[in-house]
Amino acid sequence: MTHPPKAQAPHDRLAAYLGADMTAVNTLIRARMASEHAPRIPEVTAHLIEAGGKRIRPMLVLAASHLCKYEGEFHHHLAATVEFIHTATLLHDDVVDESKQRRGRATANLLWDNKSSVLVGDYLFARAFQLMVDCGSLRVLDILANASATIAEGEVLQLTTAQNIATSEDQYLRVIRGKTAALFSAATEAGAVLANAPEEHVQALFTYGDALGISFQIVDDYLDYGGAGANIGKNIGDDFRECKVTLPVIRAIAAGDAEERAFWQRVIGAGKQGDGDFEQALALMAQHDTMESTRHEALLWASRAKAALAPLPDHPLRDMLSDLADYVVARLY
Amino acid sequence: MTHPPKAQAPHDRLAAYLGADMTAVNTLIRARMASEHAPRIPEVTAHLIEAGGKRIRPMLVLAASHLCKYEGEFHHHLAATVEFIHTATLLHDDVVDESKQRRGRATANLLWDNKSSVLVGDYLFARAFQLMVDCGSLRVLDILANASATIAEGEVLQLTTAQNIATSEDQYLRVIRGKTAALFSAATEAGAVLANAPEEHVQALFTYGDALGISFQIVDDYLDYGGAGANIGKNIGDDFRECKVTLPVIRAIAAGDAEERAFWQRVIGAGKQGDGDFEQALALMAQHDTMESTRHEALLWASRAKAALAPLPDHPLRDMLSDLADYVVARLY
Repeated sequence: MTHPPKAQAPHDRLAAYLGADMTAVNTLIRARMASEHAPRIPEVTAHLIEAGGKRIRPMLVLAASHLCKYEGEFHHHLAATVEFIHTATLLHDDVVDESKQRRGRATANLLWDNKSSVLVGDYLFARAFQLMVDCGSLRVLDILANASATIAEGEVLQLTTAQNIATSEDQYLRVIRGKTAALFSAATEAGAVLANAPEEHVQALFTYGDALGISFQIVDDYLDYGGAGANIGKNIGDDFRECKVTLPVIRAIAAGDAEERAFWQRVIGAGKQGDGDFEQALALMAQHDTMESTRHEALLWASRAKAALAPLPDHPLRDMLSDLADYVVARLY
Repeated sequence: MTHPPKAQAPHDRLAAYLGADMTAVNTLIRARMASEHAPRIPEVTAHLIEAGGKRIRPMLVLAASHLCKYEGEFHHHLAATVEFIHTATLLHDDVVDESKQRRGRATANLLWDNKSSVLVGDYLFARAFQLMVDCGSLRVLDILANASATIAEGEVLQLTTAQNIATSEDQYLRVIRGKTAALFSAATEAGAVLANAPEEHVQALFTYGDALGISFQIVDDYLDYGGAGANIGKNIGDDFRECKVTLPVIRAIAAGDAEERAFWQRVIGAGKQGDGDFEQALALMAQHDTMESTRHEALLWASRAKAALAPLPDHPLRDMLSDLADYVVARLY
């Protein structure tokens, strides 16, 4: 846990191992994002889907279903489903956050307009829904329906906790479960359910996905305040400028005196930010060691993800999932 | 067909007949729109859901399931599902159209913000999805997944046909199927499927909902250019100002000479509108009789809706659905 992970990216090993599957998933994604009558849809979708995301969610589906010895072909549908849901949420997020860049390219809301992003997002969600129905499992549908509700609820909660310096760590956890972990855990759980895995394995894969997602998002939030040599394709300080209340800030507020609280209330609560405020925020976080404690929290969740894999059978994919948890927190170094 | 319908609103008779069911549906809607952690969600939803929409879609579900002798209780879930999907699309539509009024009240995007409308719409869609899964029927899920895709595709198509004076009647039909008819027909079809109705009855109820929805939307588009004594709680001329290409305009463009085409290209194609242009548009439509031919088109679809009911058993609800088709076009007089 406290050692830096190996140099070779387990993400790439996973992609290589699942190569044939991923080719099938990508073919399915291209087929299902088409629209005979509204060419705007594949234009907007392709801009985002083909921008080279890491496809981590579909790989989680495939890995979970193979780990549970699935022999059908609907894991491809399920993998495409989670990628569509993810893409739909990105389109809507960029509208909500008024983002200008995503994956190093201009966002769809900037290239086209907010309207297209909202409606194409809705279309992708509907297409995801069709793909799930194809899988023919009511339990898989139930998992993804619940995940969808958790995602949307987390997004609304994030909207209402922004600028609220009284935000608790519990609320933060709920926000990041919605933002990231709910789809990770739905991917791994549904992959196991599709394979009719025993309950113990279903639960293990759910817990793995949940902890991996939480770890992933804490790392993201950590890196938004700089971290060590961060290079994540987004600008440092975005969360600060958008007055989002993330873990390093929550802990700095909790540890601060009255004067510091007044600072946080001004810059985050009231959103009144001027020159030097970001640097002052960083100084307060350093003073209370909250970057370091946030880093530890991410490592803790990564170790929970790895521990959750214990009940699963010995398998190269199990090792790769374990390594993936290390990889996620490797960005901390 | 060419006679004015009866004075008593069949919608009210339907509501009275389905009173106990609608009470159960409203209770379910209130329970499922709640969110323990994000109070913004029920605030936004209640603003819209309790503004007194006519609840026509849930009533279509209930009527179809009773007509097909359904004896379970999941027709309430299905009815709440379609109302949630409808509400979600209204929230997103108002963002897309930058609307300021809906059902005589300020829109959610104006009272809160676009972000809340986008995300609460997503939440309601996810809640609808959960309600459907509760019904336990893969075929019902398939119908609603397909309807969702048709709705979203129609919305995107509407976005791209706006300002396009070459829009065909076929494209218009596809837009209004997405906008209105797809959810009407999904409501009636899924109600029948839930009741395990024979295929002939499922098909009849699908066709009824489709034709009713098309008729409904053509009437709406007709009234946007004034119609006779229109009072539909929205402003006359909205479609014109938003450069939407609806049936009365499509037919006026098709019948116009070069000079008229230049006019349409300027006001709709280029969106350059000045004083007197709306009146000029009305004059051209009158000259080519396209309001009258649009009115006839709506009446034709209403008669198709009524004819579709023929294979269904004799039942007070069948008569009310038939009268409802008359009621929809009664606004034309």
